[in-house]
Amino acid sequence: ISSKLPKSEVSIFTVMSKMAVDHNAINLSQGFPNFETDKELKNLVTQAMKEGYNQYPPANGVHELRQEISKKIEGLSGVAYDPVSEVTVTSGATEALFCAISAFVEKGDEVIVFKPAYDTYEPTILLNGGKPVQIQLKGKEYKIDWEEVKEAITSRTKMLIINTPHNPTGTILSEADMKELESLLQGTDILLLSDEVYEHLIFDGEEHQSASKFPKLAERAIVCSSFGKTFHNTGWKTGYCVAPEPLMKEIRKIHELTTFSVNHPMQRAYAEYLKNPEHYLQLAHFYQQKRDFFLDLIRDSKFSFTPSKGTYFQLLNFEKITTENDVIFAERLVKKHNLASIPVSVFNIDRKDHHQLRFCFAKTGDTLKKAAEILCSF
Amino acid sequence: ISSKLPKSEVSIFTVMSKMAVDHNAINLSQGFPNFETDKELKNLVTQAMKEGYNQYPPANGVHELRQEISKKIEGLSGVAYDPVSEVTVTSGATEALFCAISAFVEKGDEVIVFKPAYDTYEPTILLNGGKPVQIQLKGKEYKIDWEEVKEAITSRTKMLIINTPHNPTGTILSEADMKELESLLQGTDILLLSDEVYEHLIFDGEEHQSASKFPKLAERAIVCSSFGKTFHNTGWKTGYCVAPEPLMKEIRKIHELTTFSVNHPMQRAYAEYLKNPEHYLQLAHFYQQKRDFFLDLIRDSKFSFTPSKGTYFQLLNFEKITTENDVIFAERLVKKHNLASIPVSVFNIDRKDHHQLRFCFAKTGDTLKKAAEILCSF
Ligand SMILES: CSCCC(=O)C(=O)O
Ligand SMILES: CSCCC(=O)C(=O)O
Repeated sequence: ISSKLPKSEVSIFTVMSKMAVDHNAINLSQGFPNFETDKELKNLVTQAMKEGYNQYPPANGVHELRQEISKKIEGLSGVAYDPVSEVTVTSGATEALFCAISAFVEKGDEVIVFKPAYDTYEPTILLNGGKPVQIQLKGKEYKIDWEEVKEAITSRTKMLIINTPHNPTGTILSEADMKELESLLQGTDILLLSDEVYEHLIFDGEEHQSASKFPKLAERAIVCSSFGKTFHNTGWKTGYCVAPEPLMKEIRKIHELTTFSVNHPMQRAYAEYLKNPEHYLQLAHFYQQKRDFFLDLIRDSKFSFTPSKGTYFQLLNFEKITTENDVIFAERLVKKHNLASIPVSVFNIDRKDHHQLRFCFAKTGDTLKKAAEILCSF
Repeated sequence: ISSKLPKSEVSIFTVMSKMAVDHNAINLSQGFPNFETDKELKNLVTQAMKEGYNQYPPANGVHELRQEISKKIEGLSGVAYDPVSEVTVTSGATEALFCAISAFVEKGDEVIVFKPAYDTYEPTILLNGGKPVQIQLKGKEYKIDWEEVKEAITSRTKMLIINTPHNPTGTILSEADMKELESLLQGTDILLLSDEVYEHLIFDGEEHQSASKFPKLAERAIVCSSFGKTFHNTGWKTGYCVAPEPLMKEIRKIHELTTFSVNHPMQRAYAEYLKNPEHYLQLAHFYQQKRDFFLDLIRDSKFSFTPSKGTYFQLLNFEKITTENDVIFAERLVKKHNLASIPVSVFNIDRKDHHQLRFCFAKTGDTLKKAAEILCSF
């Protein structure tokens, strides 16, 4: 049996979460909260099951949910996506990303990705016969060098993938970035895949710059988001994507093959829950407090950092502690000190190491305190 | 925008279910029950949510569920699959089929499919650059002509797909069929994808011939099944596949990209529910009664049929009624007579019409009675 993805290994998130369990460690590795999702939301799922929403929902999503998604986006970005033809509910943002890439990327196509990059983009590009064209984010602030992007574009560039707020670095794209991108793509056929799963987790009064807000980006953009990240229930596996109808038509052809449709009771619950915008508007404040709580506790440690601007991840630099590479240090940290994190080099296909570990701060104060104690012990 | 799947249209199941809703028709089209899943199972989901199983489960499935799947198969087929490395929980059997094809089929590969065939096989093969090699099932009993299969095998044959019990024809493969297949594949590298989502729905005392029971098939087989079909909750989108470890390793690489993991509360519920084998062993009897009830009511109608041997589908031949093709007649049936069915020609890529419609009898007695009345009015 020859492998179509010979370089793919078991995901780092699986590996580290398993190590955390095996060593009874505090798990700040895989991105999920260790506190509970809203009881109201659970009750809505129970109610949906009781009301009989247990058979196939429409393949592209429960209509009421698509309407609420459309309303949410209109409220935030002022842009109207047609719930019938431009919104599709997917099995997590993971499936949305997979369908978006698989619908368009063909043999020989180039796709521009910014490194470090979430770990499913590149294997999915490869699976479809495409070629990832990697551009390293620059400096401590992980900025995009737009000149470099311009030079990377060729006649074979099919797609460009952005991710804001950015996992794992916790940086965000500014309005100026989006305008650069807009002018760069103008006049080309290049598609934009915008991974915005942390759209509501953005700090210090900054505003999320969704691709949907910029008309010349929106016309070529597939925007992906996640209810699991937004509503503290990553195990419910529900996300969505929006795109102009001609693009969405192609994405849905793939979605029909990958999963056909998404868990019905959960969709009904989200449709109801989304009606109250407070449920997502309060998130920025909620997670900023967690970030600040965590960073205050480790400010005097040997780890150095730039505060995360978005997502629920914080990078910590450990070069004052050891010259070990990040994979080795992460392993020591979980095995000897019972604290699991993610070595950032795994987001780089060449496994380049910048002495950084990623920590998820979507945790209770108690867990963050214990984690900080361990970090301060170095 | 050029389409990677120019021939793919919106799924017939989506089209017919929507027509059924629009015309307030009895919906015997898409395959799902119109009665409720067990209350006990719903309670188990509620309990799992309450107990906090709302974050990412392990990517390959909740361990207890994989153990129960393994035990179930061992009980039925006497074969032991390792829950750790040979069982993967997927977002419905749909995702299992997608991952199995996408993990192995590459540009230029041929895949043998028997027609009529479930509608996701061929587009998924095409998406991966493969070529479907179609073999028509023969006669009223939809038999496989093994000589024809032998002749269809070439050095490029990567995979062969079987489906037993068979959707849409309601036929099953016999032990003799499986032995023919075994000897045909012996000495080759051809993989076997066995779609067994209706494994528990088999009638008249016949025994399901799972590929897993035949060692020389099992060593090359990916076997897919569905909890949605088995436990009357197609909207919970949970299925699984089993395969020898070297094959499963490749399938999981794709699964990590398509969905990563499957709804956690539902997985916990199934794990508990599977402990009682009665929950699936009673199915054959339950659905045989439904089939018999339905067929008794239409025995004197102008529709002719061979009773379904498995699945919850019944083909009805309408050539005594009209010379219209099946798509036209199905449309008239739903629009004028308020009864939705599936025209069988859509399972054939060339849309060949044999004057057959498919009816789903996973319905309450009352619904089946009303449907039969309509059918008898012709
Ligand atoms: C799908 S598991 C990975 C979760 C996640 O988004 C992350 O930890 O970066
Ligand atoms: C995934 S929708 C199709 C359901 C089904 O299996 C069928 O009707 O054949």
